[in-house]
Amino acid sequence: MADDGASPTGSHGLGSPWFQHHGLRPWSIDATTMGLDEAQLDGLDWATAFAEMEALESGAIANPDEGRQVGHYWLRAPDRAPTMGQAGQIGEAANAVAAFADGVHTGTITAEDGHPFTDVLHIGIGGSALGPQLVDAALAPAVRGLRLHFVDNIDADGIAITLATIGDRLRHTLVVVVSKSGGTVETARAADLVQRAITSKGLQWGPQCVAVTGEGSKLHRRAEAEGWLSIFPMWDWVGGRTSVTSAVGLVPAALAGIDTAELLRGAAEMDAWTRHGDWRANPAALLAGCWHAAGRGRGDKAMVVLPYSDRLLLFSRYLQQLVMESLGKRLDLDGTVVDQGITVLGNKGSTDQHAFVQQLRDGRRDFFATFVQVLGDGLGDAAPVVGDANAGDLLQGFLVGTRRALADEDRPSLTITIPEVSAAELGGLIALYERAVGLYASLVRINAYHQPGVEAGKKAAASVLSLGDRLRATLGRLPRTAPDLAAELHEDEVEVFYVLQRLAHTGRIQRDGMGPAATFSAGGTR
Amino acid sequence: MADDGASPTGSHGLGSPWFQHHGLRPWSIDATTMGLDEAQLDGLDWATAFAEMEALESGAIANPDEGRQVGHYWLRAPDRAPTMGQAGQIGEAANAVAAFADGVHTGTITAEDGHPFTDVLHIGIGGSALGPQLVDAALAPAVRGLRLHFVDNIDADGIAITLATIGDRLRHTLVVVVSKSGGTVETARAADLVQRAITSKGLQWGPQCVAVTGEGSKLHRRAEAEGWLSIFPMWDWVGGRTSVTSAVGLVPAALAGIDTAELLRGAAEMDAWTRHGDWRANPAALLAGCWHAAGRGRGDKAMVVLPYSDRLLLFSRYLQQLVMESLGKRLDLDGTVVDQGITVLGNKGSTDQHAFVQQLRDGRRDFFATFVQVLGDGLGDAAPVVGDANAGDLLQGFLVGTRRALADEDRPSLTITIPEVSAAELGGLIALYERAVGLYASLVRINAYHQPGVEAGKKAAASVLSLGDRLRATLGRLPRTAPDLAAELHEDEVEVFYVLQRLAHTGRIQRDGMGPAATFSAGGTR
Repeated sequence: MADDGASPTGSHGLGSPWFQHHGLRPWSIDATTMGLDEAQLDGLDWATAFAEMEALESGAIANPDEGRQVGHYWLRAPDRAPTMGQAGQIGEAANAVAAFADGVHTGTITAEDGHPFTDVLHIGIGGSALGPQLVDAALAPAVRGLRLHFVDNIDADGIAITLATIGDRLRHTLVVVVSKSGGTVETARAADLVQRAITSKGLQWGPQCVAVTGEGSKLHRRAEAEGWLSIFPMWDWVGGRTSVTSAVGLVPAALAGIDTAELLRGAAEMDAWTRHGDWRANPAALLAGCWHAAGRGRGDKAMVVLPYSDRLLLFSRYLQQLVMESLGKRLDLDGTVVDQGITVLGNKGSTDQHAFVQQLRDGRRDFFATFVQVLGDGLGDAAPVVGDANAGDLLQGFLVGTRRALADEDRPSLTITIPEVSAAELGGLIALYERAVGLYASLVRINAYHQPGVEAGKKAAASVLSLGDRLRATLGRLPRTAPDLAAELHEDEVEVFYVLQRLAHTGRIQRDGMGPAATFSAGGTR
Repeated sequence: MADDGASPTGSHGLGSPWFQHHGLRPWSIDATTMGLDEAQLDGLDWATAFAEMEALESGAIANPDEGRQVGHYWLRAPDRAPTMGQAGQIGEAANAVAAFADGVHTGTITAEDGHPFTDVLHIGIGGSALGPQLVDAALAPAVRGLRLHFVDNIDADGIAITLATIGDRLRHTLVVVVSKSGGTVETARAADLVQRAITSKGLQWGPQCVAVTGEGSKLHRRAEAEGWLSIFPMWDWVGGRTSVTSAVGLVPAALAGIDTAELLRGAAEMDAWTRHGDWRANPAALLAGCWHAAGRGRGDKAMVVLPYSDRLLLFSRYLQQLVMESLGKRLDLDGTVVDQGITVLGNKGSTDQHAFVQQLRDGRRDFFATFVQVLGDGLGDAAPVVGDANAGDLLQGFLVGTRRALADEDRPSLTITIPEVSAAELGGLIALYERAVGLYASLVRINAYHQPGVEAGKKAAASVLSLGDRLRATLGRLPRTAPDLAAELHEDEVEVFYVLQRLAHTGRIQRDGMGPAATFSAGGTR
């Protein structure tokens, strides 16, 4: 702080409930620079929030719309699962994943030609990709396992680029397809494209594949029919955005050589810490309470996530899904329209100090920052670069300096400190936010565990595809404009124009002219 | 659209000024789903905005605080530069970059051992990294040049990971260091760490390096003193966040084998289109006007950027800097406190439909979406995957479907359509947003070309480093707590605790206990 002794934290110091510290390791959650009063958090209905969380952990139907239990906390503490059957399934699945990864690493499970698998191509979208991607970026650089690649979209161009990156190693690449229902179009059709690429090289598809999916799903049946190497379970009581400690996250992590037991242990330890029934001793409740107070229970302030660590670059993207898909809800539990949510953005420090931090420091006051501080140097060179200070000291200086610069302008921030970017600490970070999101949802009376808004886009997409079919059926040799065709089909002229433009640009219909006055007719160049 | 014939665009169809189309290529900027009236845009002070833009392009001091011209538009049309000298410099630099890249590609410029360079390690931060990273991700997959790697932070751990990725190819890696002033600490010290890694392998540093920097800067002097291969200019009339069409972006792009002439041509073409003095025929003005109307001239709605293309994944990150650093300003041109800005976030479609799009569709109404549609298939497999539809058709279906689903809930969106992710089209996208940001800044009366908020964090960081020095000087054999030391040094106890925790965790001082009551003393394990 400045030499005048003023403090960015005011009376909220190390001894206050705004600074919560782990008893045994250098983990802290610091809300001293949020500018809040204890009365603001005391006024929240914690009794209900903690009771709902306890009911959820005990196996209540915590996702009432879908009639489902919400069991991700059991994944790292199977003895807390409500039934022996579930506890057994969790343990069996974890063992099966470990045994499979061990087989791959030791060479008892190999590619068809007997060569060890060298790479993993993970196909999944949303919660089936974001957790594995975060874990890979954060932890894989420090271990020696298979190299992970991801297909998380139905972008054929992107898939081609990923396949080109893999190159000749494709024959020794294990394909992991993740889809709970097996009905996710992007994942299923992306798998088709990868299958086509593999078989076009004269390789067998099934013996390179494993699935992570629900019992009896479309994907489950496909994997059985095609003789895939293995099928790992995804239960309906695990949601996509909280699936990283299920087989969804464990399979790719274990194949990459990451210590999944440590990931689970770190998550379990955070779960234990964040079960405390007083926000003053529960860092997840502290976070949820701060989000609520800062955004007046309506998400009026965006969450800007700034890990000062290259390895945690994807943490904000992971939290975008966890927070926004969980909290972005139209209706509350009583069916009242509330249009809830908290917007999440971020990238990494100190990089962003040369980018959007300008606005944080100087512009709109519609956010709170969340700094993530890593105390250790990781794999980095710890030799001094300026006086006695090494690069890690500079990085800390930028973090603490930016935290202070924001506080000096009354811009609130949270600071989470972890000792290292290790499997255990990442498990802890993930569990911390899972719990905070669940508590916040209770505080604002919404269901954090469904995603009703996703369906509308899917249905509309299907009707756009059928529009394409109808346009191709309608087009003849007579050139016609988009507005003309739209009127005939009772469709929107801009949507019709877009579909026609793509068909024409890719040579499947003819186009004359450009822009809205262009005419289209049947007969393409391919 | 639905069969009842209702339209998400209402009366705003293809023939309206809300849909602007390029005359010769399938480029369109579509604001038909913004839900705006023409009167809202007509009411803005376009005369001043266009006049200020014209003055800027003519060489006025458009960045008054720093007394600088703003000349990024001249980079793609040197004959528009205000002086013959500047026009000549631009042409010379472009030629020098092309000749250098040609020398590297043809093997007349090689690594010390005579082997061709295989990789590029680009060291820069903020505007010196985000543009090159965007260009690399979007365009490098389709060409065969040197492989690019980036160091954009002073994270020693991240640098070690990047160096490990390069591995033995480090001896054939060209290092490009980018810093206008040469005084950016992160870049200068990151270069030191890379230098140490290179020389520790017995390699020469200077003969592997090139600089992009201002004449006479610290970096310029270092490059000269150390015998670097080449020095390319960065002029004070080019700002970091608009530097991608200067040597900052051209050097790495050309080395990667990207057609930089096409990048410049596409930008120049967009510049020409967006000079039109009527918002009804100027897509950059259309964007700026829509941002203004949607956010009531105060940025009340966040810009959610959703390119439906894996290659454009970094576009939102690029725009985060361009928009937020340009528009996030405390003071307007008269010195009145306005706390301006527009928050930017995003990732890519259709991936995000399985993540945060839930909130867009169902939650807070504090955003407008910007879809980016790519008409072509790029390198992708165009064979059908569902009926007659191929993967690209599905991707378009998801985009148009989500656009419609948002419109059905009165959530505004823009849709930008480009034919392909090519160098020319990417140049056009970049130029479109540069111009829109400049016009918007005029509309809200702020200086888009300075970044006064960045300094405070730097100064605070320096004082945190000096706090570390003072703590180490103060600590003796007597164990003391952070609050005790903070009181003695008149510093903030949380900041003192953080600095002590890092020093202890990295073995440079001793710690007894954990948490706020821990005591610290001199003498570490290393």
